[in-house]
Amino acid sequence: MSLITLTTDFGTRDGYVGEVKGVLATRAPDATLLDIAHDVEPGDIRCGAWILGRIWVRYPAGTVHLAVIDPGVGGERMPIVARLSDRWYVGPDNGLLTHAIRSHPVAEARRIEAATGEGAPSDTFHGRDLFAPAAAHLSGGGDPRAIGPEIDRSSCVVLPVPRAARRGDSFLGHVVHVDRFGNLITNLPVGWLPAEVEIRIAGVTLHGPARSYDAVPRGELLVSRGSGGTLEIAVRDGRADRRLGVTLDAEVEAAPRA
Amino acid sequence: MSLITLTTDFGTRDGYVGEVKGVLATRAPDATLLDIAHDVEPGDIRCGAWILGRIWVRYPAGTVHLAVIDPGVGGERMPIVARLSDRWYVGPDNGLLTHAIRSHPVAEARRIEAATGEGAPSDTFHGRDLFAPAAAHLSGGGDPRAIGPEIDRSSCVVLPVPRAARRGDSFLGHVVHVDRFGNLITNLPVGWLPAEVEIRIAGVTLHGPARSYDAVPRGELLVSRGSGGTLEIAVRDGRADRRLGVTLDAEVEAAPRA
Amino acid sequence: MSLITLTTDFGTRDGYVGEVKGVLATRAPDATLLDIAHDVEPGDIRCGAWILGRIWVRYPAGTVHLAVIDPGVGGERMPIVARLSDRWYVGPDNGLLTHAIRSHPVAEARRIEAATGEGAPSDTFHGRDLFAPAAAHLSGGGDPRAIGPEIDRSSCVVLPVPRAARRGDSFLGHVVHVDRFGNLITNLPVGWLPAEVEIRIAGVTLHGPARSYDAVPRGELLVSRGSGGTLEIAVRDGRADRRLGVTLDAEVEAAPRA
Repeated sequence: MSLITLTTDFGTRDGYVGEVKGVLATRAPDATLLDIAHDVEPGDIRCGAWILGRIWVRYPAGTVHLAVIDPGVGGERMPIVARLSDRWYVGPDNGLLTHAIRSHPVAEARRIEAATGEGAPSDTFHGRDLFAPAAAHLSGGGDPRAIGPEIDRSSCVVLPVPRAARRGDSFLGHVVHVDRFGNLITNLPVGWLPAEVEIRIAGVTLHGPARSYDAVPRGELLVSRGSGGTLEIAVRDGRADRRLGVTLDAEVEAAPRA
Repeated sequence: MSLITLTTDFGTRDGYVGEVKGVLATRAPDATLLDIAHDVEPGDIRCGAWILGRIWVRYPAGTVHLAVIDPGVGGERMPIVARLSDRWYVGPDNGLLTHAIRSHPVAEARRIEAATGEGAPSDTFHGRDLFAPAAAHLSGGGDPRAIGPEIDRSSCVVLPVPRAARRGDSFLGHVVHVDRFGNLITNLPVGWLPAEVEIRIAGVTLHGPARSYDAVPRGELLVSRGSGGTLEIAVRDGRADRRLGVTLDAEVEAAPRA
Repeated sequence: MSLITLTTDFGTRDGYVGEVKGVLATRAPDATLLDIAHDVEPGDIRCGAWILGRIWVRYPAGTVHLAVIDPGVGGERMPIVARLSDRWYVGPDNGLLTHAIRSHPVAEARRIEAATGEGAPSDTFHGRDLFAPAAAHLSGGGDPRAIGPEIDRSSCVVLPVPRAARRGDSFLGHVVHVDRFGNLITNLPVGWLPAEVEIRIAGVTLHGPARSYDAVPRGELLVSRGSGGTLEIAVRDGRADRRLGVTLDAEVEAAPRA
């Protein structure tokens, strides 16, 4: 069984996801298609990159991760395939690999040429005309060389996402994702920190991490060890982003608990 | 073919659904994954319970229903598997089985221990670390005893959802779900009622049930025999919840038509 | 492998999609189910028709396209199956085939009778009780004659969607879909037009078509050759519908560039 995952900002009220799946189902009839997320905000490459970073190695070797959040479609950004840790990425070279690349170096990268598609691709729907044919090809075990010429492995676009850093006894990090629940996911690795920390964000000081959400009363802020291995700030049964008025890239400081 | 259905409040703009599917696809490569609903409001256990009640026996025996609407993750509520009518439930023991249990008694229930997962599970994402491995295990025909110790079958959490009751010649019921269309689904079984009833809700009196929506002009209220076997109140091409200002648990009275 | 695609307005927070899939998975265990779109606005037949028109031939011959946007369920509109270009449509005869029919004439059409379902169908959920059983039957290679009597192929409902027309040296068209990105998809075929056109819509004049979105600065309007073969009006990294205050059926004029 071969797997193709789909991550897009196409939404679920148009036919775009359906067109992409039709190309995949026609060209890779034995592949299993798995929807990851289609309601990424239009053009939100940062969010797509975060998703890919989370899911990358959860899938078996050989999986093709097709990702189309592509505000620059038809323009300068390059359509590519890239192999990281024996899984394939197929999509635009616009930063969607930012998080995945950090833990898994690019082993092979190629520019997609139209050879695997039929006729001339459209200028505005590479998801259907370039990426889906390439994903189907790779999923079926096709030779990557048929897709296009190899490109410099170190050239893949990485967004300037802030990184956590030590600052004396403390650590300075940032909010790198705000999820559906309003949880603030930081880039502060739990493994860097002592068992008890004091967190400062948006003028508020919190102690943690708590073991679970019910360590605080409903509606209260808490710090938790996030499931991605970094600290998260949440409101029990509520939204931390609204409570704190905080968005992407907000600073978070973590100090050993005094 | 084995089936695993997925019902969550994870939304479709984060990576959480993708992480869960990755675990399932890796551990149960022959299972077919079917999305039921991922846009349940965060923490809305009542809605999840209603969904499971509706879909339970529509699926073949052996199906695994994975459901993760889990605001108490990591806290006191128990991670469980439960077998009802030869289908498995995998998820938190927090009331998600409320409706399914009414028609299908629990034949076997077990507490999930971490044995089937890799390493220590996170405290905040049991969907990925406990439930998905258990679902994959059961889906592949694995021995339920490997998941954890049996628990009291009658101990599964049931929410205090109102029940319909006879009151003289009439019946008193409640709105137990408000669906996407703004339809008000009641707990008044069609089978209890005479062919013609008078419905009172939010100070309004309606006659019914109508055979279909076009029995009334556009924008008008009507009562219908719902597809779940209970009375429903709808507005043709509109929303009954907004028209009546009614939400979950609102009272509905049904009397034989005078 | 047989394919069944699903296009509905059921949303993704109720159990309706799950009930339909349960019937399909039970009756057509070998079919692959592919979600196309479930967040079509309630009752928006025009949108559903546009989706089907886009996806129809992207899928292999033999595919069953199940579509349930069905505000008239249980009423006068007829439940049908229809074969176009060797793919099957299953759903209400309410105009959902409007766009697909234009390029692919109906080769066979039948009224669905309850024969393929169990017991009496509900009046309000034909998706589950009539359409899913019929789709499963056809998907498994069942004889279409078992579904119900043949009906007049030319009788399928077609909505009065505006058509593009020549007007002297110019062409008059309309917006026939507004997509998730706020792009305005017109019915003006790119093939009709000269290489350079002047577009007038909502009092604004644009030159185009541009090769890709980055031909204009962020936030600016542009005309593009849409991936469906007709002109589209977009705002780079923005929404053309809001910028122009334009909705479905708005007029668009295209003239050779002076």
